[in-house]
Amino acid sequence: MAEPTPPPGGLLNLDLDRLRRCGFPEVVFGASKTENEVVAAATRIAEAHGQVLVTRAAPSALAALLAVLPKGRAYPRSGCFSFGAPAPRFGVVGVIAAGTGDEPVAEEAAVTLTARAVRVKRFHDCGVAGLHRILERLDEVRTCVALVVIAGMDGALPSVVGGLVDCPVIGVPTSVGYGAAEGGKAALMSMLASCAPGLTVVNIDNGFGAGYAAATIARKLPALMSATTG
Amino acid sequence: MAEPTPPPGGLLNLDLDRLRRCGFPEVVFGASKTENEVVAAATRIAEAHGQVLVTRAAPSALAALLAVLPKGRAYPRSGCFSFGAPAPRFGVVGVIAAGTGDEPVAEEAAVTLTARAVRVKRFHDCGVAGLHRILERLDEVRTCVALVVIAGMDGALPSVVGGLVDCPVIGVPTSVGYGAAEGGKAALMSMLASCAPGLTVVNIDNGFGAGYAAATIARKLPALMSATTG
Amino acid sequence: MAEPTPPPGGLLNLDLDRLRRCGFPEVVFGASKTENEVVAAATRIAEAHGQVLVTRAAPSALAALLAVLPKGRAYPRSGCFSFGAPAPRFGVVGVIAAGTGDEPVAEEAAVTLTARAVRVKRFHDCGVAGLHRILERLDEVRTCVALVVIAGMDGALPSVVGGLVDCPVIGVPTSVGYGAAEGGKAALMSMLASCAPGLTVVNIDNGFGAGYAAATIARKLPALMSATTG
Amino acid sequence: MAEPTPPPGGLLNLDLDRLRRCGFPEVVFGASKTENEVVAAATRIAEAHGQVLVTRAAPSALAALLAVLPKGRAYPRSGCFSFGAPAPRFGVVGVIAAGTGDEPVAEEAAVTLTARAVRVKRFHDCGVAGLHRILERLDEVRTCVALVVIAGMDGALPSVVGGLVDCPVIGVPTSVGYGAAEGGKAALMSMLASCAPGLTVVNIDNGFGAGYAAATIARKLPALMSATTG
Amino acid sequence: MAEPTPPPGGLLNLDLDRLRRCGFPEVVFGASKTENEVVAAATRIAEAHGQVLVTRAAPSALAALLAVLPKGRAYPRSGCFSFGAPAPRFGVVGVIAAGTGDEPVAEEAAVTLTARAVRVKRFHDCGVAGLHRILERLDEVRTCVALVVIAGMDGALPSVVGGLVDCPVIGVPTSVGYGAAEGGKAALMSMLASCAPGLTVVNIDNGFGAGYAAATIARKLPALMSATTG
Amino acid sequence: MAEPTPPPGGLLNLDLDRLRRCGFPEVVFGASKTENEVVAAATRIAEAHGQVLVTRAAPSALAALLAVLPKGRAYPRSGCFSFGAPAPRFGVVGVIAAGTGDEPVAEEAAVTLTARAVRVKRFHDCGVAGLHRILERLDEVRTCVALVVIAGMDGALPSVVGGLVDCPVIGVPTSVGYGAAEGGKAALMSMLASCAPGLTVVNIDNGFGAGYAAATIARKLPALMSATTG
Amino acid sequence: MAEPTPPPGGLLNLDLDRLRRCGFPEVVFGASKTENEVVAAATRIAEAHGQVLVTRAAPSALAALLAVLPKGRAYPRSGCFSFGAPAPRFGVVGVIAAGTGDEPVAEEAAVTLTARAVRVKRFHDCGVAGLHRILERLDEVRTCVALVVIAGMDGALPSVVGGLVDCPVIGVPTSVGYGAAEGGKAALMSMLASCAPGLTVVNIDNGFGAGYAAATIARKLPALMSATTG
Amino acid sequence: MAEPTPPPGGLLNLDLDRLRRCGFPEVVFGASKTENEVVAAATRIAEAHGQVLVTRAAPSALAALLAVLPKGRAYPRSGCFSFGAPAPRFGVVGVIAAGTGDEPVAEEAAVTLTARAVRVKRFHDCGVAGLHRILERLDEVRTCVALVVIAGMDGALPSVVGGLVDCPVIGVPTSVGYGAAEGGKAALMSMLASCAPGLTVVNIDNGFGAGYAAATIARKLPALMSATTG
Repeated sequence: MAEPTPPPGGLLNLDLDRLRRCGFPEVVFGASKTENEVVAAATRIAEAHGQVLVTRAAPSALAALLAVLPKGRAYPRSGCFSFGAPAPRFGVVGVIAAGTGDEPVAEEAAVTLTARAVRVKRFHDCGVAGLHRILERLDEVRTCVALVVIAGMDGALPSVVGGLVDCPVIGVPTSVGYGAAEGGKAALMSMLASCAPGLTVVNIDNGFGAGYAAATIARKLPALMSATTG
Repeated sequence: MAEPTPPPGGLLNLDLDRLRRCGFPEVVFGASKTENEVVAAATRIAEAHGQVLVTRAAPSALAALLAVLPKGRAYPRSGCFSFGAPAPRFGVVGVIAAGTGDEPVAEEAAVTLTARAVRVKRFHDCGVAGLHRILERLDEVRTCVALVVIAGMDGALPSVVGGLVDCPVIGVPTSVGYGAAEGGKAALMSMLASCAPGLTVVNIDNGFGAGYAAATIARKLPALMSATTG
Repeated sequence: MAEPTPPPGGLLNLDLDRLRRCGFPEVVFGASKTENEVVAAATRIAEAHGQVLVTRAAPSALAALLAVLPKGRAYPRSGCFSFGAPAPRFGVVGVIAAGTGDEPVAEEAAVTLTARAVRVKRFHDCGVAGLHRILERLDEVRTCVALVVIAGMDGALPSVVGGLVDCPVIGVPTSVGYGAAEGGKAALMSMLASCAPGLTVVNIDNGFGAGYAAATIARKLPALMSATTG
Repeated sequence: MAEPTPPPGGLLNLDLDRLRRCGFPEVVFGASKTENEVVAAATRIAEAHGQVLVTRAAPSALAALLAVLPKGRAYPRSGCFSFGAPAPRFGVVGVIAAGTGDEPVAEEAAVTLTARAVRVKRFHDCGVAGLHRILERLDEVRTCVALVVIAGMDGALPSVVGGLVDCPVIGVPTSVGYGAAEGGKAALMSMLASCAPGLTVVNIDNGFGAGYAAATIARKLPALMSATTG
Repeated sequence: MAEPTPPPGGLLNLDLDRLRRCGFPEVVFGASKTENEVVAAATRIAEAHGQVLVTRAAPSALAALLAVLPKGRAYPRSGCFSFGAPAPRFGVVGVIAAGTGDEPVAEEAAVTLTARAVRVKRFHDCGVAGLHRILERLDEVRTCVALVVIAGMDGALPSVVGGLVDCPVIGVPTSVGYGAAEGGKAALMSMLASCAPGLTVVNIDNGFGAGYAAATIARKLPALMSATTG
Repeated sequence: MAEPTPPPGGLLNLDLDRLRRCGFPEVVFGASKTENEVVAAATRIAEAHGQVLVTRAAPSALAALLAVLPKGRAYPRSGCFSFGAPAPRFGVVGVIAAGTGDEPVAEEAAVTLTARAVRVKRFHDCGVAGLHRILERLDEVRTCVALVVIAGMDGALPSVVGGLVDCPVIGVPTSVGYGAAEGGKAALMSMLASCAPGLTVVNIDNGFGAGYAAATIARKLPALMSATTG
Repeated sequence: MAEPTPPPGGLLNLDLDRLRRCGFPEVVFGASKTENEVVAAATRIAEAHGQVLVTRAAPSALAALLAVLPKGRAYPRSGCFSFGAPAPRFGVVGVIAAGTGDEPVAEEAAVTLTARAVRVKRFHDCGVAGLHRILERLDEVRTCVALVVIAGMDGALPSVVGGLVDCPVIGVPTSVGYGAAEGGKAALMSMLASCAPGLTVVNIDNGFGAGYAAATIARKLPALMSATTG
Repeated sequence: MAEPTPPPGGLLNLDLDRLRRCGFPEVVFGASKTENEVVAAATRIAEAHGQVLVTRAAPSALAALLAVLPKGRAYPRSGCFSFGAPAPRFGVVGVIAAGTGDEPVAEEAAVTLTARAVRVKRFHDCGVAGLHRILERLDEVRTCVALVVIAGMDGALPSVVGGLVDCPVIGVPTSVGYGAAEGGKAALMSMLASCAPGLTVVNIDNGFGAGYAAATIARKLPALMSATTG
């Protein structure tokens, strides 16, 4: 009994004050928690705030979450789980993905935006190797109040888009690629060194962070903008 | 005469359409241009748009700019030059610096915001080693519509601030530090891996980029907010 | 038979003099040994010194250790095994973890401290994204004779704590995170470049090393301090 | 006299057989040679082959080369010196630079192409932040038999161009940029990881290598193509 | 129903204009797509253009492709699938591999060349540790119009070959090796820093990219050259 | 006048509460401040606390400090300035340097310890290439309450010392060396990965941090130990 | 049939001239070959030279080798297979390992030395954390004609040994360790930056290379030295 | 006087026992010492042993060394100074340099070999881009008892030479090159990952280390071999 034992109530120390300070409840990062911890955290946050968002949960954790919060929705490709998302009142934020391999990250961004009551317009498979795919939808892109632009490999798409619009652009490098792509580092460095002024960047594959930041911007705007969702 | 010669008019190919597409004229990046190129580019942009911003100009280039655009203002610590900045109509954006060594980067961010008609509130020397310095000004910080948070060394300040506010936060790592700080890479990586949701990041020492992005956000908001400038 | 054969007695060459030189028996690093080697080393050290600590043992090795040393205790989350730990006489050392994902490392630190007769106080889930969690327990933190502060992702917590206390602080970066977190390198570099004076750092995920170092400090102090264990 | 002495004739061991094997005389890499070595090498190659190309020579070496080979031409911005270049018979190869800071590298590429009897068309300041600058000259670009595309910072331009043409494209990353640009590594990695099929890449700032490779391609083609030089 | 749903028709947004712009249909990169996406993309491209090339497909995806396009051919070692390759009209391009471990990459290059109607000559196991293996076939090597030279470990072979021929040489570093080979980075850096003028390089293990680039060169030449295929 | 201006009183925001929280006044990091800022900060801290320590000051800043605080002492090799150091009451801490090139870092550590009232014993030129130099002084080393062990190049010395003593050992990698030493990174990584249990590490060349941490330990001990100073 | 097919006889192109040039037959590197290729290569080399050494073979390949060359011997820990090793005539070379985790690498070195007719003396578990383990066997160590010194983690042992002997010392970093050990890179860099003059280094985990090099040295010496094997 | 002062006699703690243990006096590494320290160390070693070797001394230190030891010889290109070198009795060791830029490193190796009584044969400018330069001197190369092979850029030469000879080969990467050459890291990694068995490697630009190691080998051989010096 000289050895340390966990305190009663487990090791979780949830930040239930986050909603007050930051405008959104604590989000459960599923990747470094046991399945029990994920479910316990999500349940307690849902009880406290009527809403919870979980990211990077394993398939078994998603199933366990659905069992305890059956009105929630699981997104297997990105590992997200969302419960109690409010009706959309803000936006529209555009989520532009360079390739099909970037879709899990785009889904994570879109689910996060939706959880924060922001309407989303999706643009699929718009990489710079076929530049017309983004150019021919530029009018639609320009109706968005903010853009999340997702690309692996060369990471060139956010630099291109950043030079074509006047709204905030958040780049998300992804780990799609191999060799010198170095798990997304090539795309990350390229975006950070972008020649397009004002591009901001989040971590590799961090669709959640980009969606969260875009939602923070969209929620500051006075009214829901009118573009139809993608 | 078989050798290539530059075309008449020099090598500059200015993007005078940038204002229309992106809402602000092309900014002259002084670091990789000759002094003549800096002055020529700035003059032509000022003629076309009545305003120009130059960043990372050498001292001699700043002097040359003042000579041809005497109504402009030079900022020697950051190497900025600003001519024709409009009266402030947007904001307030907070610019928070962790240490005195980060001031050149903070100045670059502030000059950029000012050039885009955004009011700025400065917070100096607020690094996490003396946490009370930011905590005791939290009410002021929370009146801002967006924050630019600048830190070298550990790069911890944006993660701390990001957990305390509900507005967009843009982190700027700086090259202040030595050894494992690796010219700002430690701060950059720490910010990208932040546990504070929604923090977005720009390149090391890129006060311009952070200021530009914060201005893009501030300019979308309907009215000038009331906090007094720092 | 011209080929080399291992010498009789196996390849182990234990350092049974370590207790005399360094004040604690050799600790068995389980990660790069076969299960047989782990058990043989632990048994022989237990025989020689009446105590043994094993770290980073596989689950099957933990089971095998319990079979031969049934009075020992296995810690599956961290892979530790401790046998013959003396009653606590020193301390208290605080072990502060930023998130639940850091708990295996915190457990390794706590088990190591306990094995060296040092009392431990645990602080769970105190990351800087919810700064109040550490600030509201600051009085407790300040009763400790030394602190082990554990954080992945941005690695910001040790820099924050280091600016608030006057006792030795040892930072432990963890591999929690993804992308630019680079398996703990972002946290490691951030801690090494800390603006908090006097922060020392150990290897990524090295809860053992931090616990060992904190114990070495605590054991130099004249008497057991009075704080209750966490 | 026990110590080693250089052999009579100096340390140079020129590869005068290179023209026979590779179709062009050895090129003098000025960066790691003394001024005397640069002049001696250039003189002997010019004597043997009637032509010589020097790259990365210091200003004083350029002056010394002009003194001994007054019919040659020095290019101070790139440090090149060319003597005896033949009349253009091949091409046209396009040399596209993203920004004015990339011009020294573009000059090195153009001088190398010219030295190999290849006609060059220059495209200045065509970075992706102002995409129209390259799109509006696409017809001209498509008349080229090969392209050298030069970009620093994000290195995005070769990926964009590579998706628009059907001729060989050689990307040259440059060291223009700072921070995460890491002396051209961000651009290099982005180009290597490009989503544009068939893009090949040379070392950072290696305008010579790209020009040489493009010339090797152009020289295989049967006839001089007709576009006017830029 | 507030959550985002994929648009009707799936997430694929194929670039069916690629053939017109670049001279070859879009190639399906199998590594970051689901099996369904690989098959759907390949089928639609085959329908549109009568030809399709897939790279880096999993074994199950290769089987599924053969089921729907039974006249295609699968290459299990490299994960390629080729359907509708035209009769060879161009070339010959030499594909030289340093070791047997480099063969999957060589196969990817050869399949790509064949898909673009280019004849291929293979040179196996020609690493520089046994230099005679490439020297004794130099006459054959010199009949090629372009060379793809593949090497892992030290990556020295392209530098050696580059100094012996007058045709375009494209180096492909491979991930063969361990430790300081760093997954192909040692070979990549060595090739980029090559002392052989005009060597161009593609990403690690990118046999496709090298084959594609060599084919682009070969297709510009007026007539099929006569060497027999290896 | 729309542009930002520094607040009256300059940009310094000194942490005069540091002494209360951490037991020592704020230390002035001279490297990223102007000379005026260094002098202003030092003067105000000296006024507030009767003591100040400055590190990494340029020679001209040292001279300026001596002019305003003539009772202070400047240490040109390390760039330190110390004013008002109290009489030694704690210790002894040993400062062991592997080579003469490490002496500036050792001096910084020693000055910091002295400023914190800790007695210092110096061990010069004790690198592992001449192991007897440290082994023959082991009895002296073992009388110390803590050790700062400084090494560049291979960084092996702290691992060796760590296996021979039972007191806290703090390793300081230095930037002495070239090539693969990578400005101290080889030594840093070697120390972090040490096989000696409980070794803690500070940033490259951070003699201040190691001295500060060792002083924090020494000050916790009840009485001044008796070894004579080196 | 337009697709490439392997030439008759498979893709192997063995270097049967290696024995003549380098004094030892080609060694089969098993890691990047199929099992069939490993067996075919080993069999053909054994037929040609009466001896063969295979490294890094998978367990199934070792079994297959034993099936076709039953007089050979397999070493499962290191993945080596040796057939036809001559009687020892040279040496003695010492193989010193820092820890039990380094034993697979030590075994690879020892098997290689034995295959080249060199006698081996093994020193197990001699890491610098227990320095006496190597110091007390120094007389034995000094009888060796060359030393292979193997260490992971800090990689300090070769620097220590290099300062104690006058024979050639070859350091082998191993991948034992975690975090900042970076798969052996910390040890590698530490050894390359060693303060011990004349230490040479091979790749991480490359016991074969070190054993081969030590054997090359030992074989130049006139006679077998007399120390007994370890 | 509370501050630490250097002990009488300065900070030097020379290892005058090195000659006994390692067969050669301590070598003075000039790069991290003051000029006074260099001269003091050299003088005392020369007094004790009648011989001294200094490396990496600044020009002014070389002049000062010549003033006090006028019978010594300074080598300005490499920064070496040698006094009291014995008559050559061992060797011949070949020193092969890939390019003229590698000559300072080759000189350092040659001076070191000469200082250790080993005869040297120099091979200049033998890089792999002109392979005949080394192949045509292969008979001479093969008379050497050991080889030091020096190359920057791609670092390919040692791999090529290692496959052609049966004596020990020590590779020295140099910092010649730019961009991806990364100050010699590309060459270093390429050599470490070499496919030539038994190649050992020293630090970037470490001609001294390679010369020292080659001398250690040569000195073990029974008699001076007969090749004439280069």
